[in-house]
Amino acid sequence: MSNDARFGLRRHATLSGPLPLDSGATLTPVEFGYETYGTLNADASNAILICHALTGDQYVASEHPVTGKPGWWSRMVGPGKPIDPERHFIICSNVIGSCMGSSGPATTDPATGAPFAMRFPVLTIRDMVRAQGLLLDYLGIERLYAVVGGSMGGMLAVSWAATFPHRVSAVVVIASTARHSAQNIAFHEVGRQAIMADPKWREGNYYADNDPPAAGLAVARMAAHITYLSEAGLTEKFGRKLQARTAKTFGFDADFQVESYLRYQGLSFTDRFDANAYLYITRALDYFDLGEEHGGLLANAFRATDARFCVVSFDTDWLYPTSESRAIVQALNAAAKRVSFVELSSPFGHDAFLLDSPELNAVVTGFLRNGG
Amino acid sequence: MSNDARFGLRRHATLSGPLPLDSGATLTPVEFGYETYGTLNADASNAILICHALTGDQYVASEHPVTGKPGWWSRMVGPGKPIDPERHFIICSNVIGSCMGSSGPATTDPATGAPFAMRFPVLTIRDMVRAQGLLLDYLGIERLYAVVGGSMGGMLAVSWAATFPHRVSAVVVIASTARHSAQNIAFHEVGRQAIMADPKWREGNYYADNDPPAAGLAVARMAAHITYLSEAGLTEKFGRKLQARTAKTFGFDADFQVESYLRYQGLSFTDRFDANAYLYITRALDYFDLGEEHGGLLANAFRATDARFCVVSFDTDWLYPTSESRAIVQALNAAAKRVSFVELSSPFGHDAFLLDSPELNAVVTGFLRNGG
Repeated sequence: MSNDARFGLRRHATLSGPLPLDSGATLTPVEFGYETYGTLNADASNAILICHALTGDQYVASEHPVTGKPGWWSRMVGPGKPIDPERHFIICSNVIGSCMGSSGPATTDPATGAPFAMRFPVLTIRDMVRAQGLLLDYLGIERLYAVVGGSMGGMLAVSWAATFPHRVSAVVVIASTARHSAQNIAFHEVGRQAIMADPKWREGNYYADNDPPAAGLAVARMAAHITYLSEAGLTEKFGRKLQARTAKTFGFDADFQVESYLRYQGLSFTDRFDANAYLYITRALDYFDLGEEHGGLLANAFRATDARFCVVSFDTDWLYPTSESRAIVQALNAAAKRVSFVELSSPFGHDAFLLDSPELNAVVTGFLRNGG
Repeated sequence: MSNDARFGLRRHATLSGPLPLDSGATLTPVEFGYETYGTLNADASNAILICHALTGDQYVASEHPVTGKPGWWSRMVGPGKPIDPERHFIICSNVIGSCMGSSGPATTDPATGAPFAMRFPVLTIRDMVRAQGLLLDYLGIERLYAVVGGSMGGMLAVSWAATFPHRVSAVVVIASTARHSAQNIAFHEVGRQAIMADPKWREGNYYADNDPPAAGLAVARMAAHITYLSEAGLTEKFGRKLQARTAKTFGFDADFQVESYLRYQGLSFTDRFDANAYLYITRALDYFDLGEEHGGLLANAFRATDARFCVVSFDTDWLYPTSESRAIVQALNAAAKRVSFVELSSPFGHDAFLLDSPELNAVVTGFLRNGG
């Protein structure tokens, strides 16, 4: 555990569990890389859990240890921000299956002393949530003031209310969905096939010689990255602009700025992310269908909870479009829960939830302060 | 040249050219794999040129020699169909850059006696059109009754009117665009990177040992294939249905039908298409901006032609959406040309132009018979 003003508290926990998984397998021990900001109050009633997206991590408001970049949601989390460490005890935990300190394919299998690789059990979003429940037990937090997440983090947030109906008072679900669509699955399958087609993948056994399937992972990231942006946003940002005022080269280098941008997104991603973790987390996302987990009716997932909800979508998000948020809101209404819903306008597609958005900040601020 | 009732006339021509290219290079000789159906009339006034899409070929209404499947547009071309060999002399020519008998990276470089591979010159859509002009000279056709194309074929069609303004009387442009958008370029760049990341690509020099970069090409095809389908169409066809009534496997096999379908699309494509040709043709598409070729104003591209136009889009096509067709129509109006425009309704996205569509057939039939 280290402490630094820039970083909040950088923490790690190894809990024995055992954690039973939806697959029937059991995980033990369960490792957690996580960060906390602020102080837990005397009755442990001010904790907010932030759930990260597919390739996110616990560095929500801290400098990333590999890239040196500011936290991925430092616009949302910090003194004077909607989620404020002066008022809340903020926890952001790397999901299990990932690669930033929590149990995942790159961590050591106690049975063999070697990395799990593809022997790591396939997980579900609910497994990730149950693991977070263990972490909260360890931290002495029975009930969360709020759980907040965007994209995959929003799926964890709705799954939180369904899995632990009395452990959370308020749920914020941003740019997310209660189930992965056929198109969502299709894009992820392209990414997985790109990784597994890379000869360096070697059935996942690439850890020993530190020569991972970076080319395949970069292609996977490029394909996914397109889905995070709107067509209009891409046109506004790049259009058909060429690199550095040169003319077309009549070759296969990156002539267009959008090509260069995508290549950079792919390559830089491979410095900070593990290819097997990408396989496991995309699989968990594709398996996600909260209604199916509750007898085929999404409203059933929410009947038991006493939480109130805030659902936010962005009008140009075609990865998890507003219609998916509406399905969550309709199910919450059918279950007679308190829910507020807003569709925000942004040119930036799915990525909008990570970008500067005074409207989003106002919505989250208002919801978190108003009741609880 | 072979003749068979199922095939129409399967033809090949090697023309000396030379063909000057937009890159400044010159191609000589220029090879053409093409098919014809019907008979050219005495004054050579009944010829219709059909332009194929990115991965299409000359087998528009004939059994494909590799896959054994019916022609890709046999719903549109045939006796009693909108484009009728009993009335028209129909030509469908494999574009240069492709791999079904026309000059491309897999054909022999006369300078070396070996396949061109990546020494083949980078092409533009206009280069493909100019090559088709050579073929028509050879066939003794000065002026086309019509040029008809969908998707990339539609780009060739509009480029035909711009490049040879007095050699075509009617132009049919279906599910197409006058320029590739940033998002279009982005998807193609993912595909190119997938191919080039495959170690079997070897800078394009894979012909000698018949061991092509099939895995990379399959991933490229999978990514592109998603863009050919609508989200609603994918949901209707696959939703989250599992394979063969089995439960989730908690593994990385294709659990969902949409995964299995996409994998099949990727793998089967590699049997019939050359990876380098995919690089070259996607590059030509990404370079395509007909307005830019004419001083930055699309209307300029159409000023000289005396052709009349029919532009058709599909409402769920998000690859080349209706707005792109409208831009063509507006430019034609600005140039005071005769144009009819229709947006058809279909759940099937971009692919709709290849599927059974009585409305599309009616539009094309009416346009081709009405004047000319």
